[in-house]
Amino acid sequence: MESDGDFNVLVQGCPSREIMQRLGDKWTPLVLLTLADGPQRFSALRQSIGSVTPKVLTSTLRTLERDGLLRRTVTAQVPVRVDYELSELGRSLLGPMETIRLWSEEHVPSVLRARTEFDNTREEAAL
Amino acid sequence: MESDGDFNVLVQGCPSREIMQRLGDKWTPLVLLTLADGPQRFSALRQSIGSVTPKVLTSTLRTLERDGLLRRTVTAQVPVRVDYELSELGRSLLGPMETIRLWSEEHVPSVLRARTEFDNTREEAAL
Repeated sequence: MESDGDFNVLVQGCPSREIMQRLGDKWTPLVLLTLADGPQRFSALRQSIGSVTPKVLTSTLRTLERDGLLRRTVTAQVPVRVDYELSELGRSLLGPMETIRLWSEEHVPSVLRARTEFDNTREEAAL
Repeated sequence: MESDGDFNVLVQGCPSREIMQRLGDKWTPLVLLTLADGPQRFSALRQSIGSVTPKVLTSTLRTLERDGLLRRTVTAQVPVRVDYELSELGRSLLGPMETIRLWSEEHVPSVLRARTEFDNTREEAAL
């Protein structure tokens, strides 16, 4: 597959490759999709996503903030209040993320069936 | 964001979540996009992707094969010839992957600019 622009993920060392690889980071799609409905505080975001450690979520959010995909707002109060929301750039990624999400949800039965077949074939070969 | 179907990546424990997280695996998008043009042997695939170790590429390919996204064909010759090609299920993922790829390639300047700004702000704050 060819790319028309100046950047091409299939070219080693092209910055677009590293950007694409970050987008696939384990928690990035879930953070973006969860923030699609509006800003959230750290604790709410963590609870909403679940099964992510605070340390890993913090690191994911920091990377997304640095890449300009989300904004972090600190409100001086006790305790300090920190909100996260998608930037315009982050919102522009929702469409593409949504296509990956839909594919994943639609093809659960096919993928699970393929896994069972694969595992059965290997078991038979081992007999 | 709500999902209409039986599966929802935003629900903890839903199998679609784990499937989506696998699709974002560091090398998965590059393997799928590289195989879009046709079958490839392991060595060609590795050379084409570059900067991936044989061990990690093997593991990525095995996972994709188990999930039914690609087919592995072994031809008995000396040395044994192994080809990888996308399955129909794998091909159905090219469209969604292409939207993520295009986003990554189109937004390189915005992301790089955001990173510079973020780093500069932090440097100033440290002065």
